[in-house]
Amino acid sequence: MELDQYEFLRDPRKVEILEHCSDVFAEHGYEGASLAQLATACGLSQPGLLHHFPSKKAVLLAVLVYRDLQSAQQLGLEFDEARSVEELLSGSPGGLALLPFVKQMFRTGLERRNIIALFAKIASEATNAEHPGHAWAVQRFDLTRRGYEAAFTQDAEAGRLQTGADPAHIAKLLVAVMDGLQLQWLLDPAVDAAGTFDLFVDALAVEVAA
Amino acid sequence: MELDQYEFLRDPRKVEILEHCSDVFAEHGYEGASLAQLATACGLSQPGLLHHFPSKKAVLLAVLVYRDLQSAQQLGLEFDEARSVEELLSGSPGGLALLPFVKQMFRTGLERRNIIALFAKIASEATNAEHPGHAWAVQRFDLTRRGYEAAFTQDAEAGRLQTGADPAHIAKLLVAVMDGLQLQWLLDPAVDAAGTFDLFVDALAVEVAA
Repeated sequence: MELDQYEFLRDPRKVEILEHCSDVFAEHGYEGASLAQLATACGLSQPGLLHHFPSKKAVLLAVLVYRDLQSAQQLGLEFDEARSVEELLSGSPGGLALLPFVKQMFRTGLERRNIIALFAKIASEATNAEHPGHAWAVQRFDLTRRGYEAAFTQDAEAGRLQTGADPAHIAKLLVAVMDGLQLQWLLDPAVDAAGTFDLFVDALAVEVAA
Repeated sequence: MELDQYEFLRDPRKVEILEHCSDVFAEHGYEGASLAQLATACGLSQPGLLHHFPSKKAVLLAVLVYRDLQSAQQLGLEFDEARSVEELLSGSPGGLALLPFVKQMFRTGLERRNIIALFAKIASEATNAEHPGHAWAVQRFDLTRRGYEAAFTQDAEAGRLQTGADPAHIAKLLVAVMDGLQLQWLLDPAVDAAGTFDLFVDALAVEVAA
């Protein structure tokens, strides 16, 4: 990604707008959020909002870039050196060594319901190829899967995995379990998503480790 | 559920409308689908559609009942004796014995992309407690989890599970993996959701069986 994509994140007023709009998208999705709702949430008129971002689509894309950068920052990356999850994970000590960190990341993520809800709603809406978030969602899932795959490939190459344990399979499964548990938890907060994820990850480690 | 809830399913014209509207919801979600789009998809005017169902919300609820009944039928139940997934699974020979059937059900489900997309979009939209599909989604996930839990509890009681294997955990995990893989596949059809699910289920069986 080019750095000038992030220009708007240096403007505190724009960042404030993105925070408010992110919450509206988290509640209603992109499809269900009107420009009027977005503007009201920001304490702006519709022309006022459009002065900062030219369209509802532009607001969504900026929100997604903003949230992705926040995720990168939570993973320990500085703003200006934001790299893909893939790059981060492939430079890691391997997937098995990362699992405690992945568990912690998943648990911490649940403290911010609106961000989980935002990603869940936009990802499912964006399965429609004409949705403005489609390219973002496809790329985000692909990068995340490839990141985990690269990390577990390191384990495989170092002889730390069982023969037959497939890094690509592990990657798809990890991502699927996270998304699936988050959905259950969004629908019913009594579902212990983090506890279930911990048990899953621990069993996975036992299953795939040499 | 009362049988008269299903009255509209005996009217072939209404069923035809639900098929068309289901496809519109599968593409745009409930939030993104307008009454005009729904009517057009049915070859009706908006008043014509509203003659059959009083509101967009009523169409959605009927679509969800219709698709749930279809799922029940695919599980081998007759229309008039439609029971919950929970009841079906608890009357089963146990969760372990059901796993080959669950794999087949998952694989077959992928032949109908629009139905997978419908459930994915409505479930994530319905994480908003004010969404008209909220109660449906919460109940559907709860019944499905409880169904698998009841089935694996039979295994536990018959000594077929490892000590410590938790039927409630297995249930949450099975449902999560299905939803998560479907989402990845909806975004990118190159993701081999069925193959990944098969591997997961086989490993799960090895892990939990006594």
